[in-house]
Amino acid sequence: MRSFQRGALDLRPVILTPGVSRYAEGSVQVEFGNTKVLITCSTEERVPPHLMGKGTGWVTAEYGMLPRATHTRNQREAAKGKQTGRTMEIQRLIGRSLRAAVDLSTLGPRTLTLDCDVLQADGGTRTASITGAYVAVVLALRSLQKQGTLTKQPKLTPMAAVSVGVVNGEVRVDLDYEEDSKADVDLNIVATGDGRMVEVQGTAEHQLFDRKTLDAMLDGGLAAIHQLVAAQAKVLE
Amino acid sequence: MRSFQRGALDLRPVILTPGVSRYAEGSVQVEFGNTKVLITCSTEERVPPHLMGKGTGWVTAEYGMLPRATHTRNQREAAKGKQTGRTMEIQRLIGRSLRAAVDLSTLGPRTLTLDCDVLQADGGTRTASITGAYVAVVLALRSLQKQGTLTKQPKLTPMAAVSVGVVNGEVRVDLDYEEDSKADVDLNIVATGDGRMVEVQGTAEHQLFDRKTLDAMLDGGLAAIHQLVAAQAKVLE
Amino acid sequence: MRSFQRGALDLRPVILTPGVSRYAEGSVQVEFGNTKVLITCSTEERVPPHLMGKGTGWVTAEYGMLPRATHTRNQREAAKGKQTGRTMEIQRLIGRSLRAAVDLSTLGPRTLTLDCDVLQADGGTRTASITGAYVAVVLALRSLQKQGTLTKQPKLTPMAAVSVGVVNGEVRVDLDYEEDSKADVDLNIVATGDGRMVEVQGTAEHQLFDRKTLDAMLDGGLAAIHQLVAAQAKVLE
Amino acid sequence: MRSFQRGALDLRPVILTPGVSRYAEGSVQVEFGNTKVLITCSTEERVPPHLMGKGTGWVTAEYGMLPRATHTRNQREAAKGKQTGRTMEIQRLIGRSLRAAVDLSTLGPRTLTLDCDVLQADGGTRTASITGAYVAVVLALRSLQKQGTLTKQPKLTPMAAVSVGVVNGEVRVDLDYEEDSKADVDLNIVATGDGRMVEVQGTAEHQLFDRKTLDAMLDGGLAAIHQLVAAQAKVLE
Amino acid sequence: MRSFQRGALDLRPVILTPGVSRYAEGSVQVEFGNTKVLITCSTEERVPPHLMGKGTGWVTAEYGMLPRATHTRNQREAAKGKQTGRTMEIQRLIGRSLRAAVDLSTLGPRTLTLDCDVLQADGGTRTASITGAYVAVVLALRSLQKQGTLTKQPKLTPMAAVSVGVVNGEVRVDLDYEEDSKADVDLNIVATGDGRMVEVQGTAEHQLFDRKTLDAMLDGGLAAIHQLVAAQAKVLE
Amino acid sequence: MRSFQRGALDLRPVILTPGVSRYAEGSVQVEFGNTKVLITCSTEERVPPHLMGKGTGWVTAEYGMLPRATHTRNQREAAKGKQTGRTMEIQRLIGRSLRAAVDLSTLGPRTLTLDCDVLQADGGTRTASITGAYVAVVLALRSLQKQGTLTKQPKLTPMAAVSVGVVNGEVRVDLDYEEDSKADVDLNIVATGDGRMVEVQGTAEHQLFDRKTLDAMLDGGLAAIHQLVAAQAKVLE
Repeated sequence: MRSFQRGALDLRPVILTPGVSRYAEGSVQVEFGNTKVLITCSTEERVPPHLMGKGTGWVTAEYGMLPRATHTRNQREAAKGKQTGRTMEIQRLIGRSLRAAVDLSTLGPRTLTLDCDVLQADGGTRTASITGAYVAVVLALRSLQKQGTLTKQPKLTPMAAVSVGVVNGEVRVDLDYEEDSKADVDLNIVATGDGRMVEVQGTAEHQLFDRKTLDAMLDGGLAAIHQLVAAQAKVLE
Repeated sequence: MRSFQRGALDLRPVILTPGVSRYAEGSVQVEFGNTKVLITCSTEERVPPHLMGKGTGWVTAEYGMLPRATHTRNQREAAKGKQTGRTMEIQRLIGRSLRAAVDLSTLGPRTLTLDCDVLQADGGTRTASITGAYVAVVLALRSLQKQGTLTKQPKLTPMAAVSVGVVNGEVRVDLDYEEDSKADVDLNIVATGDGRMVEVQGTAEHQLFDRKTLDAMLDGGLAAIHQLVAAQAKVLE
Repeated sequence: MRSFQRGALDLRPVILTPGVSRYAEGSVQVEFGNTKVLITCSTEERVPPHLMGKGTGWVTAEYGMLPRATHTRNQREAAKGKQTGRTMEIQRLIGRSLRAAVDLSTLGPRTLTLDCDVLQADGGTRTASITGAYVAVVLALRSLQKQGTLTKQPKLTPMAAVSVGVVNGEVRVDLDYEEDSKADVDLNIVATGDGRMVEVQGTAEHQLFDRKTLDAMLDGGLAAIHQLVAAQAKVLE
Repeated sequence: MRSFQRGALDLRPVILTPGVSRYAEGSVQVEFGNTKVLITCSTEERVPPHLMGKGTGWVTAEYGMLPRATHTRNQREAAKGKQTGRTMEIQRLIGRSLRAAVDLSTLGPRTLTLDCDVLQADGGTRTASITGAYVAVVLALRSLQKQGTLTKQPKLTPMAAVSVGVVNGEVRVDLDYEEDSKADVDLNIVATGDGRMVEVQGTAEHQLFDRKTLDAMLDGGLAAIHQLVAAQAKVLE
Repeated sequence: MRSFQRGALDLRPVILTPGVSRYAEGSVQVEFGNTKVLITCSTEERVPPHLMGKGTGWVTAEYGMLPRATHTRNQREAAKGKQTGRTMEIQRLIGRSLRAAVDLSTLGPRTLTLDCDVLQADGGTRTASITGAYVAVVLALRSLQKQGTLTKQPKLTPMAAVSVGVVNGEVRVDLDYEEDSKADVDLNIVATGDGRMVEVQGTAEHQLFDRKTLDAMLDGGLAAIHQLVAAQAKVLE
Repeated sequence: MRSFQRGALDLRPVILTPGVSRYAEGSVQVEFGNTKVLITCSTEERVPPHLMGKGTGWVTAEYGMLPRATHTRNQREAAKGKQTGRTMEIQRLIGRSLRAAVDLSTLGPRTLTLDCDVLQADGGTRTASITGAYVAVVLALRSLQKQGTLTKQPKLTPMAAVSVGVVNGEVRVDLDYEEDSKADVDLNIVATGDGRMVEVQGTAEHQLFDRKTLDAMLDGGLAAIHQLVAAQAKVLE
């Protein structure tokens, strides 16, 4: 039986708590079961050097995990003096995804920085981060509009993300840590509610995968994303 | 008027929420008004090289602040590749204080690592961290005892910490960020409920201070610590 | 017209030159058109700490680009003192892929280290690296067998990699730098000659993609990989 | 018996040798017994970014210890590639103290940088550094005045620093290394000659301390600082 | 017998292959026997801060070795996060030498950056680098002239470099790795074809050397450099 | 006229003050005119990994410059987080030279670490360091013998170092900073008193040099080294 008594294609309970930070322009705490990520969206009225004078905006992301977010303690990256390859890979993925969600040309010359800090990790931290980050971005843009900095909302493409895997020969959606560590194939999907894709990253962990398996995983993942986008919309109402 | 409608020697509302982490041996979320710190205590059945074979234990601490814990975003230390002097100074203070709270010789050859991560910062993050860390340590030791790793609790000295300052000529306890940034003198005290001191760090920010002022600050701080130690005891009952 | 007068689903001329290093146990220079990567496979009769005593082997990869491999000079990573997120992401991908190509349990307690150094970059450096790395691994294992270190070859799964993209609305295989920089969608595939997949990484660069487009890209990519695996086999005869 | 045949509240022989550097605007070698620190004060006609255009000046400090200043050799921080937490803590203390000694608004838009390098360490290096740094600052300001860069001296508050401890139950002033390593309580005080305090940092090393002990330590420390300020004045005559 | 059946004062076969990079303004692959270095010369129309506004140009060099250029694999400097002392020493030597080859005042306000990356190392990588770098510089300047950026060639001083050593009591020119590791004295010379010297670096490895030995080494080295400068001229015709 | 009223081939006043450190096994302060270097020789009864079990010893050196040793302040290397190429080059030179001075096989399995810290720099800091380091080594070995750790002195080869340059067409020995910065050629020599050489490093700064000039520089340098070795002997009597 899967955690939370759910079926193979069911999500864990998803909770999006907006406005958890007193100071950030936009913020949300996202929970996918026992995975908990605190996300803030900070805004700045300037852009990185390579965009100066072009009128366009920028969205970037950083990802971190508290040392004891997991079963055993990991060394603090700030103490080690460098971010791991895994951290870099994840924050690049979050940044790319959110840049696809916000039309940078109508954003204007400002930067949105997403900080995704994992308070507790039970699998799927990157997909939870992306799902929550979209909410944080929308809240930050609303707050800019309220304070008059932004006169018109940039065009937005609502999107969310989920992990899918093959465990014991079965396609399962939203793996927890235990499932993730024994999955044969692991797929992360970022997409819109109507199935247009932003990122697809599939990895054979212990077994190669064929087109049929990939299709089944995409079916399951896109259906789950449809629900996640609906959950985002509800919170943002 | 001070925040939370309080008098010069009053603490902000203090909330200690134990057991906030599913994985850490001990954990607590501590709030002093709008300051919020997530603290985990991780245990390991080994000691640093300089203590090997001596039978004694070790307690150490690390401190971090989420980039947007404050009014404006700070650069992530993991991304910069080094911890600031401020971070180092604070985590050394927390570590020293908690080593005074736990009798290392009866702790046995194990290490307790405190991770104090500031989710939201409104002044007093180091004193909130120490106050919460004591609770996390006790919870971690209880969990070691429950799982049979520890047969006998080491001797503990309950202690807490508070900041005191001189603002507009008045001695005030538990400064929030706004008060802190305009205080003339700033004092951090770590002590037991009955006024025995572990650390006293006083700094003239804009004005030197005399013995009489120091005495008044110590009076206010130690009285507040008496209350904080009582709050810890209540949570630990 | 595409570079090298080729059709949308054609590869650039691919040249695999084995044995380019006098010292490495296995080596190859791989060219995909004007992209040139020098790959060495170094062997060591030991494994990383987390595998000690388990009898199993390890495969890892590092990736680098000479500062002037590209149109304009990039700062040398050794001089900057850190590897970029892009480098980390690529070398993690190469390592994962080659670990899927070599059966680690029959490899025995030894480590294969792949160094993929890009001498000239015209798009597709990561896929050229993976394609060449498989050849370097096989050559290194043969050399271990010849010198008697390895008595039996580990089970191998031949695989190669290619990039696919959507450019001007057309699905194209093996993009060069110019095409890559204007592609709307970018997909890297690592797979066997008969279409079983190891890694699939698709990214919407300027435009989201639907299932139909993904399918067309997979068709094109897997057909090209079939040819690349044949080219590897020929060189290894 | 204490080193140098002195009583519990006596300082070690203190020697301030001004002008030891041929190039620095101000310099002094300070000795507290066998502790020897070489201090230079360098001046620059500019301020850090956060003070630009405000008309006010800045004072900052760096601290280092030669690798063999101590009984056994320590690794060189420049070779390790980072400063220890202890170094950071000390140089922040020196900087804060000296900023309290110089009125930054009348200093004008210039920066004074104090380099305190410990040639030989026998306890009390931070307090010797502060005591000497005040002298180096005054000499540097005089040299700026002599060369016409500074037309009017900024307002100065003469101050010095000393360590106090409880050893074998006795309050002692100006601990040497051997006493320091067995002290139960350790207190560093920075103050003016008439007892107004700049910094007070007390730490329970092996035993908590009460108000009475703190008072006795402050009495002893402030009396010693009175003498140190007199010694500074004599050298500066 | 020496490698390549050569006499004590003979060079290994020297091959200079110009134009090996499609993108760099100047490039060459230099081989001294089995030592192979890929050299690019990149040009920029700006100078480092300390030369701004002076009208003069700059030449600088970076050196690297692929991890498996040697018999056993070395750790990648980019992964370690710092360059070794040996790398720094060599790239400083190459930079100084080439600055002596190009008249910086007639170069104009531009920077030439030489990247010398060792693909295969069999002794003499620094002298091969300098010998090749001169060729890369000339090719880069020609390409600047062809594209109209440079109207007049700066004054050039053709120069090359070679290693000389004392092995088994015999003075030998252009040592390979095996000879180098057992040489008693090691001398690197950078000079013009007519014996004017740019750099002379002699080191007693296992035995001190007298004036007579130094003279014999200089004789041998300068004669070899005469040939190397002729080889450069031929390639540049 | 040269500084200190001396002739072209004269040294500046050289002062070797032995025993300046209370803790180091061997120490000396060396002055060449206004250049002042504090040198300690620390001993350890162990060797680096690559020498373990071989019975032979090791000598190594580190070099540093106090930030304000020079006319203008340099950034502290420990604060920057890395040593400059110049520092690395110099400490490698000092280490190599002293390894030639001490017979490592009769030294036994111990390490001598030389710390050369420049207190004041007026040219020739590396040659002063080598000259002083020899004295520090001898003193350290004597102290090991006195305490019974070493039963027999290793074979020693007394040696010293000096800089020579061509300034205004004249060969000059022991350049001060002002001469050094305008020298056309710069040569550092490490040698014994009877002219056997350990290191020779000549660099054309603004003008190439021929054999005749090199010979004249060697003549001047070796004569000065003869005097320096005599000065060492006198101090060591």
